[in-house]
Amino acid sequence: MLAIVLQQREEMQEDMMNFGVLGSGVVAQTIGGKLVERGHSVMLGTRDAGKLADWKAKAGAEAKVGSFADAAASGEIIFNCTNGQGSLPPLKAAEEQNLNGKILVDVANPLDFSKGMPPSLTVCNTGSLAEQIQRTYPKAKVVKTLNMVTAALMVNPGLANNGDHDLFISGNDADAKAKTVELLKKELGWQRVIDLGDITTARGTEMLLPLCVHLIVAQGSPMFNFKVVK
Amino acid sequence: MLAIVLQQREEMQEDMMNFGVLGSGVVAQTIGGKLVERGHSVMLGTRDAGKLADWKAKAGAEAKVGSFADAAASGEIIFNCTNGQGSLPPLKAAEEQNLNGKILVDVANPLDFSKGMPPSLTVCNTGSLAEQIQRTYPKAKVVKTLNMVTAALMVNPGLANNGDHDLFISGNDADAKAKTVELLKKELGWQRVIDLGDITTARGTEMLLPLCVHLIVAQGSPMFNFKVVK
Repeated sequence: MLAIVLQQREEMQEDMMNFGVLGSGVVAQTIGGKLVERGHSVMLGTRDAGKLADWKAKAGAEAKVGSFADAAASGEIIFNCTNGQGSLPPLKAAEEQNLNGKILVDVANPLDFSKGMPPSLTVCNTGSLAEQIQRTYPKAKVVKTLNMVTAALMVNPGLANNGDHDLFISGNDADAKAKTVELLKKELGWQRVIDLGDITTARGTEMLLPLCVHLIVAQGSPMFNFKVVK
Repeated sequence: MLAIVLQQREEMQEDMMNFGVLGSGVVAQTIGGKLVERGHSVMLGTRDAGKLADWKAKAGAEAKVGSFADAAASGEIIFNCTNGQGSLPPLKAAEEQNLNGKILVDVANPLDFSKGMPPSLTVCNTGSLAEQIQRTYPKAKVVKTLNMVTAALMVNPGLANNGDHDLFISGNDADAKAKTVELLKKELGWQRVIDLGDITTARGTEMLLPLCVHLIVAQGSPMFNFKVVK
């Protein structure tokens, strides 16, 4: 028994990765916490480290907090979990050289709630937040995914329909997408991931958000996802 | 046996309704043909009756073809199956007095393919085609539905996952939505219809189209739909 535990810990340490998660909200804390739980080292990047003291205390020894630039520099893979409407300034603060060559998983939605319900998107139809980010950081490998589900489902898809539902993924770099799919399956428990194509296809998943908002209101809960059936 | 057939025919005749279907494309022909098959009288409205000679010949005795105004005048319920990008001129040709007080089921999508793939929407985010139509014809009862699936599935949802998937519906008039849901279930075979709310929620279903287009390309087939799972 002890041998197995030690072996598992050794395997976890071998596979241990450093993640940088930009953001301090529920999505950042949930994804960051899950990756720590899975044996990785995670730094959340924020303007206000004080907001993350509780998260740091609860999430474990490998849960770290720093500036946007610290988090981006420390991560082999970066998650953008900032408010989608205001994602570009945090990414600028993260500094381009800390993003270049890395997978940048963009989980954010450019939702504008400032005019009340329903929210509108600050960019859509002929563009998307993911494309804006890719254009601004051409050497980062932007992968859009996870943005259409609530935070709890992102890291525990089994909470809906035993995990039998679909996640969509978009990005220009095939290898970055393949590595992200592996991460989604192995670390977060996703069973089904549909590759939509290049980063322009993120328009489709970002434009799904208005329907998601209507469904949350109509059903009274964000704990759902879509399954593509044939 | 003969008695049962005669009784069924009598019941069909009692329930027989007149539908006006605006449009001459695959969606109009498919919905129109199905409603004739179900025992109803259907007039397709078009600028060019010649395009519908084959449909008329095949669809049965209660399949009729006329102008947009003829079709709208003859229908107790109207389907807008025109090209969504150009729906307003046919509706104008259908004449407001022929739409007033009636359920107008808007199946169209404001897709613009003129700049190639992927198409963009001519209206979205802070508005929708359904809202434009409702605003232009305030006395019509606009109900948005069916627009997110391919024509074959609209009238035969069992072709995907034995019909176990979701249709969304939007509209301001509760009674019009209830009657449309009954029609969708009884005549077209839909099992699951989710009421999203008022006509502004049509933004959500129209903005689903870019994702649908990406999925058609990624999967190589339009024969799919979404199931909302919890």
